[in-house]
Amino acid sequence: EAGEMSTVQEVNSRVRGIRAPVNLQGLAACISEQIGVKKPFKSVIDVSSGDPHKAGMPPISFIRQVMAVCLYPELLKEKSLPLDVRQRAQKLLDMCSGGSVGSYSTTSIGLPEVQKSISEFITRRDGGVLSHPEDIILTIGSQKGLSVFLNLLTSGEGKTQTGVLTPMPCPHTLPMLLDMTGLALVPYRLFEEQGWAVNLDELHRALEAGRVHCEPKAIYISNPGNPTGYVQDRETIEKVIRFAATNCLIILAEEVHQGSVYGQDKEFISYKKVLSEMGKTYAETMELVSFHSISTAYIGECGLRGGYMEVVNIDPAVKKCLNFTPSAPVLPQLALELSLNPPRPEDSSYNSYTQIHHIEDTLSQNAKRALEFLNRVEGMSCQPSMAGPFLYPRVHLPPHMVEEAKRLGVKADVLYCQRLLEEEGICVGAGCENGQEDKNYHIRHRYLLIDNKINQFHRSFCEAMLTG
Amino acid sequence: EAGEMSTVQEVNSRVRGIRAPVNLQGLAACISEQIGVKKPFKSVIDVSSGDPHKAGMPPISFIRQVMAVCLYPELLKEKSLPLDVRQRAQKLLDMCSGGSVGSYSTTSIGLPEVQKSISEFITRRDGGVLSHPEDIILTIGSQKGLSVFLNLLTSGEGKTQTGVLTPMPCPHTLPMLLDMTGLALVPYRLFEEQGWAVNLDELHRALEAGRVHCEPKAIYISNPGNPTGYVQDRETIEKVIRFAATNCLIILAEEVHQGSVYGQDKEFISYKKVLSEMGKTYAETMELVSFHSISTAYIGECGLRGGYMEVVNIDPAVKKCLNFTPSAPVLPQLALELSLNPPRPEDSSYNSYTQIHHIEDTLSQNAKRALEFLNRVEGMSCQPSMAGPFLYPRVHLPPHMVEEAKRLGVKADVLYCQRLLEEEGICVGAGCENGQEDKNYHIRHRYLLIDNKINQFHRSFCEAMLTG
Repeated sequence: EAGEMSTVQEVNSRVRGIRAPVNLQGLAACISEQIGVKKPFKSVIDVSSGDPHKAGMPPISFIRQVMAVCLYPELLKEKSLPLDVRQRAQKLLDMCSGGSVGSYSTTSIGLPEVQKSISEFITRRDGGVLSHPEDIILTIGSQKGLSVFLNLLTSGEGKTQTGVLTPMPCPHTLPMLLDMTGLALVPYRLFEEQGWAVNLDELHRALEAGRVHCEPKAIYISNPGNPTGYVQDRETIEKVIRFAATNCLIILAEEVHQGSVYGQDKEFISYKKVLSEMGKTYAETMELVSFHSISTAYIGECGLRGGYMEVVNIDPAVKKCLNFTPSAPVLPQLALELSLNPPRPEDSSYNSYTQIHHIEDTLSQNAKRALEFLNRVEGMSCQPSMAGPFLYPRVHLPPHMVEEAKRLGVKADVLYCQRLLEEEGICVGAGCENGQEDKNYHIRHRYLLIDNKINQFHRSFCEAMLTG
Repeated sequence: EAGEMSTVQEVNSRVRGIRAPVNLQGLAACISEQIGVKKPFKSVIDVSSGDPHKAGMPPISFIRQVMAVCLYPELLKEKSLPLDVRQRAQKLLDMCSGGSVGSYSTTSIGLPEVQKSISEFITRRDGGVLSHPEDIILTIGSQKGLSVFLNLLTSGEGKTQTGVLTPMPCPHTLPMLLDMTGLALVPYRLFEEQGWAVNLDELHRALEAGRVHCEPKAIYISNPGNPTGYVQDRETIEKVIRFAATNCLIILAEEVHQGSVYGQDKEFISYKKVLSEMGKTYAETMELVSFHSISTAYIGECGLRGGYMEVVNIDPAVKKCLNFTPSAPVLPQLALELSLNPPRPEDSSYNSYTQIHHIEDTLSQNAKRALEFLNRVEGMSCQPSMAGPFLYPRVHLPPHMVEEAKRLGVKADVLYCQRLLEEEGICVGAGCENGQEDKNYHIRHRYLLIDNKINQFHRSFCEAMLTG
C-alpha cells in the first residue's frame, strides 16, 4: 500500500545539482579526535572562515552587557553594571512589544527604532546622503538576507533562467547559495595581477558569455572583496554602476567588511554614496541592495546572525514581498543598534569600549605581518590585502602533487589543504571553494589569530610548505 | 545611458502574484496614534497573533538567566544568580566554539550537543521511539524551517508546478509562504461541525482537484491545529499517513503546539510515533518532516526565532542540501536546549521554575472561559479548542454588513475586524487570512491575555458584537 520510493528526489532536479562544499571541517573534526593518539599537534587550528570569537578575539563587553540585561531585566538593578549599560538596556527594552525581547519584532522587517538608527548611521557614513528607515530591512545575517532577495529573482529554466554576474574569486558560500536558490552563476574574473581589481572589459565579456545560456539580471559585488581584501575606488564603482545601468542589472553589493579597511590611504566608499552623486538619472532609477552584518570587524558576533539590507529604488512589489518574510529575530537587531551607536565620551562605558582600538590595531598588524610572511615563503605569493579578515595567496604546487591529486580525483588545492590539516592540524580554505577556476591554485585563510597564535600558525605553515 | 526602467518587476511574475496579508497591524498602528485625540479607549489590544510576551506573559526566569550568563560570562561569578544557572551556562558555553555564543554554530544545522539533546527529548516524548541526532536540524523558527524545506520542493510551472495539500483553515502565514516559495496551494477543508477534524474523503477530493492544475507532492498538517486547536487522534493520524503513502506525498507536520494541549482526555501524539508503529513498510520509507518551535506554550520566546525540524526517511541529497544553509543562530539553540531540559528537583532553580504550572493553569482556564463566553454571545459560535493559543469562532454577520463590505470591495470578516479595531481598539485576525473560503465568516484571536485583561477584552468584544 505504501509508495515504493521516496518522493523528494524526483521532485526537484535542482537539488541534485547543488555543488557541495569541500567539507574540510568534517576532516578537521576527524583529525581532532585522533589528537594524542596519532597526531603530533595539540589542537586543530581552523583559519578557513572569518570567525573572530572562535579564534579567541574577545566580544565587546558593552554590547554583551546590554544584551544580558535585556534578556534578564532584573539586572537593571545590578549596580555592578555600568549605569549607561543599564540605561541603554532600558531604552532597547522600551522598543520591544510588551517590553520583552521574547515578543515578535514590531514589524517583520525590524523594530522601527532600529531601522531609524541604522539609516542615521548610513547617512553619517555617506557624508549626508540620506538613507530612509523604510528602506532598511533587518536580516538574519547578510547571507540569509541575500538568499531572501535572490529567491525573489529566481525565475525560468534553461536559457530563461535568471543569471547573476559573480566575481571569481567570490565569498566561498556564494556558489552554493546561487545553486540552492536556482539561479545561474555567470562568472567574471577579478585580476590577481592588479590586486584582484574589477575589470570592465571582463564584465562585458562575462555578460555576453552569460547571455548564451541564461538571462543575467543582477551583478554581485563584494567590496571590500571577500576573500581578496581589495577595496574599490570611486572611479571603479562609477564604471560598474554605468555598466549595470546600461545592461539593466540590479546591483547586489555585499559591503560587510566596510568596517575593517586597514590598507594605507584606502577608504570604504559605499555604492549608495557613489550612485547618489551620479545625477538623478542614476540616483533615482538604479536598483541597488547593500548588505551589512554584525559578524565582521571588531564586533564579530557571527553566532547571533544579524545584519541588514538597504534597498534603493527597489520595485515596491518586491519591497512588499520582503515585508512578508517571517519576523526578524530581536536580539541581533539590538546588537546591531549597539554596534552602530557605541558609548560616547560622557558615558561610563566609554573607556572600556576603547578596547576596540586595540583589536583594530592588532588585526591590521597581523594582516601586514601575515602578508610579509607569505611573500617570503618560497612557492607562495600574495597580493596586498586592504580590508577584511582574509588573505588569498597563490600557492605554487609541485607537479607531483598536481598529478597525485588527478589520480585521487580531487582538486590539487583541496589535496594541499587536506595534507596541511592532516600533518600540521591547520585548516585553511581551498581556493576552488571561492569559485576560482584558473590554472593557478590558491588558499584562503584569515590572519585573525592574535599574538603568539599567529606565529605558531606561520611556523607550521612554513614547514608544511617545504615538506609539501 | 541608464536603463529606463527598474528590472526586478520583469524578472519574476511570481512576485506580483503573492497574496498580501490583510495588514490589520498597519491599521492598529494608525489607531494607536489617535488615542487620546479621537479614540475613547486607552490602548490597542492586539490578540490576532500568538505572542505571549507581548500580551504580558512573563518569560521563564531560568531560561533568561542562563542566557544572560552565556552572553556575559563575567556573570558566572555573580553569586546572586542560582548555582545551577551558572553551572548550566558554563555547560552551554563549553558547547560553543571558542567558548563564545558569538562564534558560528559548530555545524550549520546546529550544535551537535543540542541536536543530541533534542533527539533525546523526542525519544522520551514518543515513549522510546528512537530519534537520531543527525535527523535534527535547528531552524530560525518553524516558519523559516518550513520555508527552507519548501524551497527544496519548488519546481515546475503551470501544470507541473509542485503542489502542497493545505488545510483550510491553516496558519495565517502559510498561504503567503507558499506563494513566496512558488508552490501551488491545494486546499483541503477541515470540518467545523466535527470540531475542525481532518476528513479522509475530503483529502481524496482535494488531491483529485489539485491534480488538475498542479503536481501535489506534499501534505501539510497542523497538529494541534492552528488556528483550530483541534488535536488529532491516533486513528486519524494513521489514516492520513496511509493516504500520503498511497499518493507519494511527503508529510510536513507542523507540531509546534504539542506542549500546550489542555483539552480533557486529549493528548498530543506525534506523526513520527504513529508512523514508527505502523510496520517497516511505512516506518522506513515514508518521508516525514516535523516542525517545533520555542515560540509556543509557556516558553513563548517568539522574538528569539528558534526551533528545529526532525527529518525522517528524507532523501540524503535533500538532507545534504539542508546542511548547506547559512549557519543557525546560537542563542535560540541554547534556549531550546534549556526548555527541553528544565531544572530537576535537586537543582536550586527547581522551585522558581514551577511558575510554568501557574502559567499552564492560567492558559487552560482562560481558554475555557473564553470559549464559554463566545458561545454565550448571540451571533457567535465556537468549536471547543483543545490546544494552542487560538480560538477560531464563527461570526454570523448581519446582511447589511456583508453588503457594505461588497460595496467597499473588502471581505466582510475583514470589515468586521476593522470596525472592532476602530471602535474598540481590539485587533483580532480576519478568518480569511487563514485561507478559509466558505460562506461563513470567522475571526482568529488568542485567549492568552491573563487575568483581568481577558475580562476587559471580552466586555469590549461583547459590546462590539452588539453594536456591529
